[in-house]
Amino acid sequence: MYELGVVYRNITRADRTAADTLARFGSATVHEAMGRVGLMKPYMRPIYAGARISGTAVTVLLHPGDNWMMHVVAEQIQPGDIVIAAVTAECTDGYFGDLLATSFQARGARGLVIDAGVRDVRDLTEMGFPVWSRAISSKGTIKATLGSVNVPVVCAGALVQPGDVVVADDDGVVCVPAAMAVATAEAAAKREANEADKRAKLAAGVLGLDMYKMREPLAAAGLKYID
Amino acid sequence: MYELGVVYRNITRADRTAADTLARFGSATVHEAMGRVGLMKPYMRPIYAGARISGTAVTVLLHPGDNWMMHVVAEQIQPGDIVIAAVTAECTDGYFGDLLATSFQARGARGLVIDAGVRDVRDLTEMGFPVWSRAISSKGTIKATLGSVNVPVVCAGALVQPGDVVVADDDGVVCVPAAMAVATAEAAAKREANEADKRAKLAAGVLGLDMYKMREPLAAAGLKYID
Amino acid sequence: MYELGVVYRNITRADRTAADTLARFGSATVHEAMGRVGLMKPYMRPIYAGARISGTAVTVLLHPGDNWMMHVVAEQIQPGDIVIAAVTAECTDGYFGDLLATSFQARGARGLVIDAGVRDVRDLTEMGFPVWSRAISSKGTIKATLGSVNVPVVCAGALVQPGDVVVADDDGVVCVPAAMAVATAEAAAKREANEADKRAKLAAGVLGLDMYKMREPLAAAGLKYID
Amino acid sequence: MYELGVVYRNITRADRTAADTLARFGSATVHEAMGRVGLMKPYMRPIYAGARISGTAVTVLLHPGDNWMMHVVAEQIQPGDIVIAAVTAECTDGYFGDLLATSFQARGARGLVIDAGVRDVRDLTEMGFPVWSRAISSKGTIKATLGSVNVPVVCAGALVQPGDVVVADDDGVVCVPAAMAVATAEAAAKREANEADKRAKLAAGVLGLDMYKMREPLAAAGLKYID
Amino acid sequence: MYELGVVYRNITRADRTAADTLARFGSATVHEAMGRVGLMKPYMRPIYAGARISGTAVTVLLHPGDNWMMHVVAEQIQPGDIVIAAVTAECTDGYFGDLLATSFQARGARGLVIDAGVRDVRDLTEMGFPVWSRAISSKGTIKATLGSVNVPVVCAGALVQPGDVVVADDDGVVCVPAAMAVATAEAAAKREANEADKRAKLAAGVLGLDMYKMREPLAAAGLKYID
Amino acid sequence: MYELGVVYRNITRADRTAADTLARFGSATVHEAMGRVGLMKPYMRPIYAGARISGTAVTVLLHPGDNWMMHVVAEQIQPGDIVIAAVTAECTDGYFGDLLATSFQARGARGLVIDAGVRDVRDLTEMGFPVWSRAISSKGTIKATLGSVNVPVVCAGALVQPGDVVVADDDGVVCVPAAMAVATAEAAAKREANEADKRAKLAAGVLGLDMYKMREPLAAAGLKYID
Repeated sequence: MYELGVVYRNITRADRTAADTLARFGSATVHEAMGRVGLMKPYMRPIYAGARISGTAVTVLLHPGDNWMMHVVAEQIQPGDIVIAAVTAECTDGYFGDLLATSFQARGARGLVIDAGVRDVRDLTEMGFPVWSRAISSKGTIKATLGSVNVPVVCAGALVQPGDVVVADDDGVVCVPAAMAVATAEAAAKREANEADKRAKLAAGVLGLDMYKMREPLAAAGLKYID
Repeated sequence: MYELGVVYRNITRADRTAADTLARFGSATVHEAMGRVGLMKPYMRPIYAGARISGTAVTVLLHPGDNWMMHVVAEQIQPGDIVIAAVTAECTDGYFGDLLATSFQARGARGLVIDAGVRDVRDLTEMGFPVWSRAISSKGTIKATLGSVNVPVVCAGALVQPGDVVVADDDGVVCVPAAMAVATAEAAAKREANEADKRAKLAAGVLGLDMYKMREPLAAAGLKYID
Repeated sequence: MYELGVVYRNITRADRTAADTLARFGSATVHEAMGRVGLMKPYMRPIYAGARISGTAVTVLLHPGDNWMMHVVAEQIQPGDIVIAAVTAECTDGYFGDLLATSFQARGARGLVIDAGVRDVRDLTEMGFPVWSRAISSKGTIKATLGSVNVPVVCAGALVQPGDVVVADDDGVVCVPAAMAVATAEAAAKREANEADKRAKLAAGVLGLDMYKMREPLAAAGLKYID
Repeated sequence: MYELGVVYRNITRADRTAADTLARFGSATVHEAMGRVGLMKPYMRPIYAGARISGTAVTVLLHPGDNWMMHVVAEQIQPGDIVIAAVTAECTDGYFGDLLATSFQARGARGLVIDAGVRDVRDLTEMGFPVWSRAISSKGTIKATLGSVNVPVVCAGALVQPGDVVVADDDGVVCVPAAMAVATAEAAAKREANEADKRAKLAAGVLGLDMYKMREPLAAAGLKYID
Repeated sequence: MYELGVVYRNITRADRTAADTLARFGSATVHEAMGRVGLMKPYMRPIYAGARISGTAVTVLLHPGDNWMMHVVAEQIQPGDIVIAAVTAECTDGYFGDLLATSFQARGARGLVIDAGVRDVRDLTEMGFPVWSRAISSKGTIKATLGSVNVPVVCAGALVQPGDVVVADDDGVVCVPAAMAVATAEAAAKREANEADKRAKLAAGVLGLDMYKMREPLAAAGLKYID
Repeated sequence: MYELGVVYRNITRADRTAADTLARFGSATVHEAMGRVGLMKPYMRPIYAGARISGTAVTVLLHPGDNWMMHVVAEQIQPGDIVIAAVTAECTDGYFGDLLATSFQARGARGLVIDAGVRDVRDLTEMGFPVWSRAISSKGTIKATLGSVNVPVVCAGALVQPGDVVVADDDGVVCVPAAMAVATAEAAAKREANEADKRAKLAAGVLGLDMYKMREPLAAAGLKYID
């Protein structure tokens, strides 16, 4: 966050299986499994609906209106990574388009999460390269100032350390610290196991009030029914 | 709006036929038919395009970050209802996901209008359960504080009384007071009857300037043409 | 910008071939070809994904909540035009719906760019009439106050002169002054010619760092790699 | 909310003593005393710091960009009233300036709460006429369309009925239904009586943890201290 | 707007007397006198209350995060000028602080209007150098990319030509084209002459309804009074 | 950031002298001295103008609408600390008022930086207890859910570790990592030493163009002057 002009080449990535598995649960379940922390702000939206990915974070810190470091980070991508791009000030410029996406995809990146803007979204959609961003903008950028690669960054309000697991889908983006990835995957699996049964009951007309045994605590809290 | 911890079980729903018919006209025509009032703010957006519903309002008042009352309101849903959820302060948390949607759908709800966030939007889309919300967010909620069910609420700037008719589509959400539902349906039908004819003329190249006889009032207002 | 109550009937439209050609390059490439100027703010979004148009600007200046001049501008549309609508204050009302779209389409308009709201978006989508707007809203408008047609306007932060070329797609909207249209089309074509080759190299795994010869300037700027 | 073109001349104002007393407690205490409801959105800000007023609501419903009804509501003002102005769509135009303020003040109004813009703020400050608004803007308005006076309105997310008590200060604006005014004044007085004692203890270094006996419930909830 | 890397040294400034006089009327009256056009968006706010200035515009076009051209524009300032700074994309960085203000003030500038951020606001306040901006931010900028000086710019939604008159106060910022400056000053003086008389009548309790003879048109529009 | 329900009692505070000294330079100079990083977003604004503080960070992580942990953090305050409060989701509720301020002040806190709302701002102003916040709101909060104290937090986009130095003034809020505090104070002092001389020159009419020797690089970049 505080070092500029530095590229860390050797980062410790989270457990591969956990990183790959977490996509299956989606960002909402993973966020719950972590204890309701780690979410990026809801202004981060996918450029097209339906993508759901997880992977290990490679981070890049950019300056407003300057995408020079996007080329530097490309070299640090390994298959299974997701690039997390933060900017030192609020910016909606289009830092990323179809050329960079071609490069990222060739390096094995699963997607991009950027707290700024992107462009060529029709091409990115056709390529199937998912991006979560705060804006879509044709505005180009320059290549003049050094940022950093693989330093801790704050992206859309969430701290991301290089190597953390990131889960992104239509509901948003959540970051799971590398050390918590395996435990979170287990907790998420447990949550999901319960959900199928609950869903069936609710579909059959059982009320959450009864299924979760809420009637008593609601009455204790003072809820009154009036006919 | 001012009572907390109360659930009204018996509400008077608007005329069923009117409530069911209004969807056909869409929110824009209904809003015009009412005299240009009753609209929610335009930040309320559908989670997927193409849904158009109308139905009778069942209301719920929530606290920020707390979705306990969503389970309470589920029990009050009758087939043909739309749940209108307001919050006592601005909040984008994800109050509602696929489990609650399963329950609401099983009870006969046609959709949800919520002045907060929702999650599991991919599942909701697949289920065909339409939601209009101010945000999409993975952020979970707690169950700690009582709100109310079937009290008047202000949702996205519009006052909604339990039993009112709500019309929601890609253009937005409008609330029709129960007492005005039948008259509004008639007025909307009249507006629509005129539109087919107008559309044909405009498609044939007739100008609105002539069709609506605007040339004279425009000239009277001082409009000048310069060659 | 400063004249109210005036309609200019004879405007000089940009070179037709350039105006028609520019759509092919998209707003991002055209914006780069112009030297990174001329963009509208990124809050301007298409009502449906996938449209890409270019054409000559016919402008209209509106007052908040008043769409009277939309009927006046309709008469000034020629085939190949795009209507650019500005408002004298921020407004999200729905100035434009399927009836006006029918009229605009009959006159040969390729689309609408409006710094306000539109409605009937499902119909507009079915008609294939693309619109870029700051909002979608059912809110209707009145017809009471004169604005102007074919005066210079500021739309979403960009100055548009009548007859300029406008390029709009999923990435945003860019305005090309009529006098620059031909040169911009040539510059854009040149940029695009380079891109196919670059894309192939990047897809083959060549890094932008090498392709653009960035390693030396990055080192000169002080970039450090840490293992 | 739904009637346009109507002025209700005879409204029932809340208990005068309660309406006059509530200013003393401020909007935060009154909001607590009501059970944490009735607040307007926090985007409503005073045009100058330090004013604290309460009074009985006279309401006016306006159209975007049209302040005609501000002159109509002036006649309905009685000494001790606060004018509450709502607009049928989001608007930041300057509906109100020093001339209207002179008129309102002459009629005995204590202030204005408007979900839109105002202007002449330097004059208003010198006059000591407090205004809470969503914006400050030089933009003028027209006088073309009828709204209503003394109908229920939704202002900045809060429902206000004519005759309700409104309390406004640097913290925001709260609306107290007329029927709850006396009870709310009593509850607020009780809250405040407790506060002086608490303040003295806290100033002496007593912790809220001890004064409110929070240590046990915090431990029960699982709070852990780590040295 | 479209030329980058250019400084126009000889611009034609508006009539000096008109440019100096307009401050007296304030932005609201001047905007009315021009026919309700020419305003910047209301997000432009003064960094301290109470300043009211007018002067001739010297313009500068900046890139996001780059204030190099602020030093270039300083040289073009003449006594009585106001610097109008636009940015090619939305940016809130602090482009301007006490050192540049010292320089601008030494050159005779009356103030700065910038569609971005400024810093050192406490110093600027003490110096009495007024600024209208969209943000206050400590964020520094670089000096890497050329913009232009004394080209037409769009600043906060308003087109400003070099030499135009700008009027700024607590209500906002308005731009008067040089060619309209004298006529606008006359029109503003006429408006103001009327206001003193109106103010006295309103202060004496005369209603705008009567003074402006609105009762008849309101009745004609259908306004109904209900007792 | 990821631990909930934990209070760290023993934190290592940054060098006291550096922490105390940094206020003198202000947030803008400190941010520059750090290399243009560490700033909170510019939406963080002081509740009153003129305060300038620095101190060591004590952090608290809150849930939306729940201020329970504010009482827990109070106990951890030592003289010279500034409380940094982050929330797990966006929230504008009024978490903090005059009672908590009395307690914080009694414990020796120099101020509060909170990524949410506060209330009783008139009292806080009179007490001289400075607060930087994203909102002012009367909205009260509950005490139901555990957060944490003295864990790393992301506050308004900036990572703050317990014990870091925070500098806050009218320009914004910057966080200096404890390990960088001394070096930053030295760098800031150096910057400031230069400024007095520069200010004198600029006040005497010397241009930044000459003082910073910019004419040559500007010409090299292609800047053209046109008479």
